[in-house]
Amino acid sequence: MKSESLFTETKSTNLTWHEAGITPGQRHELCGHKSCVIWFTGLSGSGKSTLANRLDAALNLLKVRSYVLGGDNLRHGLNSDLGFSAADRNENLRRVGELSKLMSDAGLIVITAFISPYRSDRETVRRLLQPGEFFETWIDCSLEICRQRDPKGLYKKADAGEIAEFTGVSAPYEAPLKPEITIHSDQLSEDEAVAEIVAHLQSLGIIS
Amino acid sequence: MKSESLFTETKSTNLTWHEAGITPGQRHELCGHKSCVIWFTGLSGSGKSTLANRLDAALNLLKVRSYVLGGDNLRHGLNSDLGFSAADRNENLRRVGELSKLMSDAGLIVITAFISPYRSDRETVRRLLQPGEFFETWIDCSLEICRQRDPKGLYKKADAGEIAEFTGVSAPYEAPLKPEITIHSDQLSEDEAVAEIVAHLQSLGIIS
Repeated sequence: MKSESLFTETKSTNLTWHEAGITPGQRHELCGHKSCVIWFTGLSGSGKSTLANRLDAALNLLKVRSYVLGGDNLRHGLNSDLGFSAADRNENLRRVGELSKLMSDAGLIVITAFISPYRSDRETVRRLLQPGEFFETWIDCSLEICRQRDPKGLYKKADAGEIAEFTGVSAPYEAPLKPEITIHSDQLSEDEAVAEIVAHLQSLGIIS
Repeated sequence: MKSESLFTETKSTNLTWHEAGITPGQRHELCGHKSCVIWFTGLSGSGKSTLANRLDAALNLLKVRSYVLGGDNLRHGLNSDLGFSAADRNENLRRVGELSKLMSDAGLIVITAFISPYRSDRETVRRLLQPGEFFETWIDCSLEICRQRDPKGLYKKADAGEIAEFTGVSAPYEAPLKPEITIHSDQLSEDEAVAEIVAHLQSLGIIS
């Protein structure tokens, strides 16, 4: 009977089958790598989304399971009930933090791409996670370069007064004080930036 | 240079590196199985959480990446801002649905364990997902047996009037009309129930 063969196998491999489910260590063993949250923070136009997707693809090549959380797949879904008030922006990041925690617990390397301008919000997420599981990653790019790039035309709109409280223009960006990783995206190619993060994860034994 | 070797490898393996990130197909190839959402629904005491954790462990043995979403890891985290009003219960399941969608998109087999008594809520989740990605799984157990088990003492409390709108006692349970899977948990051992679900996923080629 199918169930018998399945459960004979269980005993022989000596895995724990208690109700609390399998452990993070068992998931890491299955995936061949540890999990963590790589939290990108930086100005609009600094390259967060582009680098997040490039990093995701690079990790896939290395047979590492990763996933990108950004405005595109959250604002239309999980967080579609939220607007852009201060309270809603805060709740948006809280949920992203909780979601990242679950996905990291599920064995994934989670890459988030949000401006997340306030230190307090980023610290809230850090506290949700285990020590060594959260990588505050500052995508450091001068405001001048971000303005020049302006991929979504948002700086232009902000300058025209069409966007209230735009980070770097009419709202503050609180740069990380002790980020785990800093990427000078105005001085590196995208390939170099991704390679730097991959090397960092390798040096810590999170991936091999 | 590290970045060069990384990106030379990219070209040679002919993977797509566009900004939209990697495709579900690429994730499935990496994981060695497809992803989906196995949505358990049933009365309190029917065995949802126990079977969800057992199924998770069985899939892990088969080298399948899965994850359980239940009250325990959601009510204290992502959904900690929600109470038990009708609107909040509805929002709770909406978020679980969106979260399941993201985790399935990330390549995982997601197993959810919520009473989810209303057809409309379950249909909302079904519509979020692709055809063939949602498995409404009815954990069918007689109310009599659930009452006898009463693992959390909730039926006793509900009978004493201490819990308002308790499913099966003072609130309806809308049984699935066309569930993808039905598990008669009052007639099967836990091992048999899990084996039945595993066999179903194998027969559809979701796992091998």
